[in-house]
Amino acid sequence: MEVIHRLLNFDKKVIFQNDEWFLFSIDSLLLANFVTLKKKDKKILDLCTGNAPIPMFLTYKTNAEIFGIEIQKEVFCLGVKSIEKNNFVNQITLINDDIKCLNNYFSNDTFDVITCNPPYFKVNNQIMLNNNDIKAIARHEVCCNLDDILFCSKSMLKTGGILAMVHTPDRLVEIIQKMIQYKIEPKKIQFVYSKEHTMANMLLIEGVKNGKGGMKILEPLYIHNNDGTYKEVIKKMFQE
Amino acid sequence: MEVIHRLLNFDKKVIFQNDEWFLFSIDSLLLANFVTLKKKDKKILDLCTGNAPIPMFLTYKTNAEIFGIEIQKEVFCLGVKSIEKNNFVNQITLINDDIKCLNNYFSNDTFDVITCNPPYFKVNNQIMLNNNDIKAIARHEVCCNLDDILFCSKSMLKTGGILAMVHTPDRLVEIIQKMIQYKIEPKKIQFVYSKEHTMANMLLIEGVKNGKGGMKILEPLYIHNNDGTYKEVIKKMFQE
Repeated sequence: MEVIHRLLNFDKKVIFQNDEWFLFSIDSLLLANFVTLKKKDKKILDLCTGNAPIPMFLTYKTNAEIFGIEIQKEVFCLGVKSIEKNNFVNQITLINDDIKCLNNYFSNDTFDVITCNPPYFKVNNQIMLNNNDIKAIARHEVCCNLDDILFCSKSMLKTGGILAMVHTPDRLVEIIQKMIQYKIEPKKIQFVYSKEHTMANMLLIEGVKNGKGGMKILEPLYIHNNDGTYKEVIKKMFQE
Repeated sequence: MEVIHRLLNFDKKVIFQNDEWFLFSIDSLLLANFVTLKKKDKKILDLCTGNAPIPMFLTYKTNAEIFGIEIQKEVFCLGVKSIEKNNFVNQITLINDDIKCLNNYFSNDTFDVITCNPPYFKVNNQIMLNNNDIKAIARHEVCCNLDDILFCSKSMLKTGGILAMVHTPDRLVEIIQKMIQYKIEPKKIQFVYSKEHTMANMLLIEGVKNGKGGMKILEPLYIHNNDGTYKEVIKKMFQE
């Protein structure tokens, strides 16, 4: 069923979603808050943009031109709908295509920043049993995997440009290995914990194309208090 | 000057140190607490053991036989003194040699667990200006670097054996790359923060020789309260 939610709580901007596929999750909001943007940034690209929550959140942080690319037509259409409804058409452009075809739209070394909330899980036989293809493609590496994302990022980023990604800590080693392989030096990580005294269940990572070594591990980010309510820092992101 | 400290607060065991070189730091206590020990572990090796704080802390956790190797004669001698004083001679054996010579003492695939609190910093020209060689060697990769530690660990560990190391987060990427290169799969990390709302200033990492992928990021460990006193979890480690 198509549903409509407030994007943030303090103004009237909205996001169209479909609750049979997935609802935008807090991952996207965290990534938009995490990514380092500079005043001089001109062009930003969001890979695997889904119904475009990240491009829309980024409008609160930057005046740069923002592009989003999404392979799934149905989800892309929801994104277009939100962007029109919110009058973001002058800042955000969505593309309905495979990220492997990005060079049909842009030349190499175009972007200052790339963001990505990719499918977290490797493909295995079990997911073929999942009838809901839209959900499966968003969550599993059916249409794009870490190599695809890093290959695109390497091509599309300017030297010194930033890739910011949200992912699962379980795959940290592989993420770091592949970033290095594609010359995107990991520079900053923040681990996200559902609440105190648990293991991290999410990671935010930022790398710099052709950057030098040296890593900063930011303070941990906790989502919930022990009673299940949101921490103040998260409420602030939602502008509650 | 040679000084003598309590090892932990609840009993009479002591550690001999020299305050012109360095005092054993909390790193060693954290690593001894962090490392996964199993009941069936028979042999443990501590690389770059210094004045042997880690072997001594480990006696509180295990009955396994513990070996420590230290290249610097003066520091090694302090370790020997503590071990005799505390009657650890039946459980701990110290070796005064370069870790590159370990195969003169042990055959490959001997150890269940290896621990290491290595020099954190790369060698640069500046440290040559430091007159205090003992301190310089303990802190900078003069006599052994990450490659040496991982080469030794790969040789000396049994398949499935564990390497646990404390290091600086700044070098996380390199640590992970080198662990993979030497077939020690990183499995568990805990980041250590001096206090809340700061970046991590230490990391504890554990890998398994010929292990499978999959990473767990443990809950963050804070050392101090905002008023500078130790957190309860740290006091507990000191048995205060």
